[in-house]
Formats: sequence, structure tokens, C-alpha cells
Amino acid sequence: MSKFLLIPDSFKGTMSSEEICSVMEQAIKSHCPDSEIISVPVADGGEGSVDAFLKAVGGERIAVRVKGPYFNDMDAFYGIINNGKTAIIEMAACAGLPLVEGNPDPKKTTTYGVGQLIEDAARRGCEKIIIGLGGSCTNDAGTGAAAALGVTFTNQSGNPFIPAGGTLKDIVHIDTSNLLPALKKVEMVAMCDIDNPLFGENGAAYVFGPQKGADEAAVKELDEGLRNLDRVLQKDLKLSLANEKGAGAAGGMGCGMVAFCGASLRMGIETVLDTVSFDSLVQGVDYVFTGEGKLDSQSLRGKVVIGVAHRAKKSGVPVIAVVGDIGEGVENVYSEGVTAVFSINNMAIPFREAKLRSKYDLALTMDNLMRLLSASRH
Amino acid sequence: MSKFLLIPDSFKGTMSSEEICSVMEQAIKSHCPDSEIISVPVADGGEGSVDAFLKAVGGERIAVRVKGPYFNDMDAFYGIINNGKTAIIEMAACAGLPLVEGNPDPKKTTTYGVGQLIEDAARRGCEKIIIGLGGSCTNDAGTGAAAALGVTFTNQSGNPFIPAGGTLKDIVHIDTSNLLPALKKVEMVAMCDIDNPLFGENGAAYVFGPQKGADEAAVKELDEGLRNLDRVLQKDLKLSLANEKGAGAAGGMGCGMVAFCGASLRMGIETVLDTVSFDSLVQGVDYVFTGEGKLDSQSLRGKVVIGVAHRAKKSGVPVIAVVGDIGEGVENVYSEGVTAVFSINNMAIPFREAKLRSKYDLALTMDNLMRLLSASRH
Repeated sequence: MSKFLLIPDSFKGTMSSEEICSVMEQAIKSHCPDSEIISVPVADGGEGSVDAFLKAVGGERIAVRVKGPYFNDMDAFYGIINNGKTAIIEMAACAGLPLVEGNPDPKKTTTYGVGQLIEDAARRGCEKIIIGLGGSCTNDAGTGAAAALGVTFTNQSGNPFIPAGGTLKDIVHIDTSNLLPALKKVEMVAMCDIDNPLFGENGAAYVFGPQKGADEAAVKELDEGLRNLDRVLQKDLKLSLANEKGAGAAGGMGCGMVAFCGASLRMGIETVLDTVSFDSLVQGVDYVFTGEGKLDSQSLRGKVVIGVAHRAKKSGVPVIAVVGDIGEGVENVYSEGVTAVFSINNMAIPFREAKLRSKYDLALTMDNLMRLLSASRH
Repeated sequence: MSKFLLIPDSFKGTMSSEEICSVMEQAIKSHCPDSEIISVPVADGGEGSVDAFLKAVGGERIAVRVKGPYFNDMDAFYGIINNGKTAIIEMAACAGLPLVEGNPDPKKTTTYGVGQLIEDAARRGCEKIIIGLGGSCTNDAGTGAAAALGVTFTNQSGNPFIPAGGTLKDIVHIDTSNLLPALKKVEMVAMCDIDNPLFGENGAAYVFGPQKGADEAAVKELDEGLRNLDRVLQKDLKLSLANEKGAGAAGGMGCGMVAFCGASLRMGIETVLDTVSFDSLVQGVDYVFTGEGKLDSQSLRGKVVIGVAHRAKKSGVPVIAVVGDIGEGVENVYSEGVTAVFSINNMAIPFREAKLRSKYDLALTMDNLMRLLSASRH
């Protein structure tokens, strides 16, 4: 009996990680019907991350009534795994861009509900909370979530308020003394695959503001708000986080989670590998199949294929990467632990045509890899 | 030590069979430096076929002074292999399209020189003559070659003449009684990968005449000549060859070789496989690598990959097809003996861009296949 571990990233714009796992599974089963297949769809922190973790390791989906992006009441959820010890939260569940479709405004939207989800998990006794940053409609730098968790923000007049993107500039004082006590025992990890700083031309407002509905003036206002928050964090909490890699993720949520919840920012794939206990999962596996939309020199900076390969290499398990395009720099991936790379492009056609047949092409490539592996192991 | 057999077709418009063998060899050697590699670049009957055979099995290149397309004196050549027992002739050597560049005229050009090459090989004692039909500038249905070998064509006035495309219509009588006696002991094989009949809308003149320089009127005249030849062959030689598959190959040379030399028409790949003694060559081989520009349902009709797969299947040796595009119908190739198929397309780009990097892509794909095979045989 053979054992396979499937842990692909999504192919952006064509297939989700879960869809890819499913196609891979089918191809393997058709050639090795009695093989053991472990599928780990990789969560990227955005929408679907909770379900990806639940699918990978099993667990429970917890429904919670919280505040939505406009302080509206709504039903959100998070997941608990590892016998309730670990919570998985995706901020998109109550601060996601699809929730404000037709009416986005990062000056007004809040992460308050995300704080409520964190509170629920902490009160439940979770020892670790993983929060996926991604797909957000907010630019409040996590101040809304912090407010929900007991952090007090006061303005010039000394009045407490719940900041949003447009009122970050009004924060004069931050007091964390009433932070939810249960949170202090919790290890917080924020999943974040981007390196952007809090503000400036590469910061949250300038880079991600426009896709959240901010016009030029709004972007400038949001950026000034983030700058003000940074000043107050330095003054009151002695924290200098503006240039931390990922501080600007999810409208500054990266910064907020570090500042108010003591979270560490980690690459999504590293979080996934830790959470699914990859190092023990990979024991006894014959082949690891991974993949991503494009494998190139960018991939060496901690993307899924390389992250997986690094870990598998320690165990000596071959890693086959099945990818969309193979770009420049691929010759450097082998020493990182990738055994071999195969593109699913089976016709010389442009991407706009190729993407329409990506599932077929993935299935075809997997089928032929399995045929080859079956033949070469006789 | 591993043993590999490389026998790819050319990728039309991008790489010759020999270039592909060379790229494949390099990839294999870099991973298995002490492996034995047998390379068989596949001749298609056109220009380069003699050299392909000589490279595949070794032999001698024989230079002969013969008549060119316009009865001009020229230096041509053929190859002898199998200790001089087999001759390989490519008709392109003295009746090839490049020889009349700038001045093509299928009404006037002759295969007379091809007959002289055949004569030389027969007189030398070759027991088998393989003649590659392909890349010709002629439409004389091999009557020129036949004339060189002693066949007499007479016209209305009873005068003997050497027909060309434009004078086929003048043949009234054919006499083969003076055919070169040495030829009777020779087995003649004509390599031919097309199915076209002698005349009509799918015949030699209509399908291939235009690319040889025939305008509409000339095509019609050539077609009528071929029809006349067929009538006289029926009358004088009791031969009805017009609808034989391949009779219309190389300006009717297919028909002429059968009619005047008793040749059999065979697919190029079958001739190659026989000539290189594939069935014994494949013994002890770990992997056969083959390939062609596009693998699809057309490939099932006797193209290189399927031809190779059929034979290798009998010996149980895995066949890996490395191809340009994978088209429709690929699911039918596995039962024919193809173990697995891989496309060299590594980026979603159109063919006009892909062809510029085909060698790189082939090398990359071969490299990764060798990496995978090396890992899976541990």
C-alpha cells in the first residue's frame, strides 16, 4: 500500500486548494485504489481558511453572533481543532470584502466582530488562536477588534470611542489595562503572506485601500490615520511596529494583532504545517504532492511549495510539485527539497484559454505522473 | 547501470529528431552519468533521412554523380548500412524542392537521378533498398527514375521518351522488359507517411502541386497526366494502383515505385523500427523516450509515438512520450503501449512564443522526468 500527502496551494484565479486536492485524489485512487491519501488544502488566511483547516485536521465549526463591518448584527463563525485547544478565525467571516459588496468604505468599516470571535475563543479556553488576515474590507488597524477585547481608545476630549479607518487620526491615548484577562494565557498567531509596512507608499492604505473602495483622498486620510496610530502606540505602549513585515496586512490588522493581542505574524504555509503537525504527518509517506499557480524565483520566499519542500526534505520524502507555470529561477528549487516540477500546461495556448481547462489539465498531468510512478516502481 | 532508448519524431517547425535526441541525452547523462543511451533519430523519408539512419545504426555515405531535377549533372548521395546489405536513399537528394529554389516547375522536373541512385545501390549488391519519399519537387510519378532503370515509355508516334510531369499525358505504351536485372533480386521499400491517392482532388497534383510551384492550370494538366499514366499502367502492366494509399506521395513517386520497382509502401516509423532492429534493441532497456509535436487521436494512425509504443509493449518496456501539445484523444494512447505522456509546455503562452523556447522547455521537462525517475527508483 502506498501513502500520499497532498498539500497544494490554490492556483490563483483558477482552482482552490481544495479543488486541487480533490483532482489529485481522484487521479491517485484510479491508479492506486488501496493507497492512503492525506489531503491538506492550504489555508491562506482569507475566506475559506477555517474550512480548509477543518477539512485538513477535523474539528468543529462554532457559530457566533457578532458585529459586522458596519456594526450590524450578523452570524459569523470560527473553527476549533486539536480537541478544542486551537481556534481558527478568518477575519473575512465578519470583516470580509464580500460583506460590504456595493457599499465598501474602509473609513467606516470595523473589525469589532473579529474581536468578538477572539473573545469567544479565549473564553472557551482555547490555548492558541490562529487568525487569518485576508480578504478584509477594513482599514482600522485592528482597533475595532481591540476595543471589543477591552482596549480603550480616547480622543482629544478624553472620550473613549471605537476607531474606524477614518477616525484613527483622532486617537490620542490608548489604554490596554482592561484587556480581556483570558487573552493573556492565549498564544496568538496571525497568518499573513504579505510584507507590507503599516503606512507609506507600500503601506495598507496606499496598496490595498483602492480595492476596498478608497478614492485618492480617502487613501491619504487612511494613511494619516495609520501614521497617527503608530505615534500613539510608540508613546503609550512603547511599541514601534510600523515597519514590521506584514504590519500593513488587512488594513493594518497585522499591526493591531501584534500591538493589542501580542500576536506573532507568520507565513500561512508555516502556520498550516505547524497546525497539521506536518513533520509527523509526513512519516511513512511515499510521495508528497504540492503545487502553486506559478513556480519561480518568487516561490523561494516562503510560498507553499518551498515551505512544504523544506519540511519534507528533513524526512527524505520526495516532493512532486504540480504547478501552473514554471517561471525563471526554477533551477534553484531542487536544492530546497523539491524533487521534480511539472507544469499542467498541455497545450501552447495563452492563459485566458488555459485557465478554462485547468482542471482537465491538472487531472491529465496527475494521471500521467501516476502512470509513470506506477510503471517505475515495478 | 540504466539503459535508455531515445526514438523521437521531429517536432515539426521547432526541433529535428536529432536535436531532440541530443537534448534528451544531455538530461539523462546529467542524472545517470554511467547509463547506456541509444539514440535513434527518426527519419521521415525527407531531407536528412539518410543521415538519420546512418546516425542510428552506423554505415557509409556513398557519393554518386547523377542527374538533378532539370537533368543537370550534380553530386548526390545515399547511405549503406547493415554491412552494405541495405541502401537508404532519400529522393530529396537529387529531386528535392530546395534544389529548384526560385525556379520550381513540376511539369518539367524529373526523378531520373533517383533512378540512378537506385541503380548504383542495386549494382553494388544491396539486397534491400529503402527509398524515402518526401520533400520532392517533381510530379513525374517516378517515370524518370523508371526510365533510368531501363523502363521504356513511348508516345503516340512510337518514339521512346523520358516523361516529366507535363508529358505524362503523352505516354501511350510502357515496356518494362529492359528493367535493370539486378533490381529483380532487390527488396524495395518506399517510406511514405501520407495516404493520398494518385490523382483527383486528394491526389498528388491537387494537394501537393501548388507547393511545388504549379498554378491552377498546371495542377489540372499534372492531374490529367497522372490519370493517363494510370490508364497505361492498367493496359500494359495490368496494374491498378491509383487508389493505393500513398500512390500520390511525392508527385506520384509512390505509385511509380510500386509499379516499376515492385516496392512496398510503408510508414516511415515502421521502416525505421525494422531497419534498426528495434525489437532486439529494446531488450534490457529501462525506459524508451519518444515524442512528437502533437499527440492526439491522429497519432493513433501510425505516427511515431504509437509505432514505437506498439513494439515496446511486446517487450514490456515503459514508453515515456515527451510531446509538444497533448490534444484530444490522448486517453486512447495508453492501451497502445504508451506508459505516460508529458507536454513540454511549461508556460501558458501561445505557440508563436512557445516555439522560441522549445529546446529549453524540452530540457526542463526531461530534467524533471529524470529527477522523478531517479527519486522513485531508490
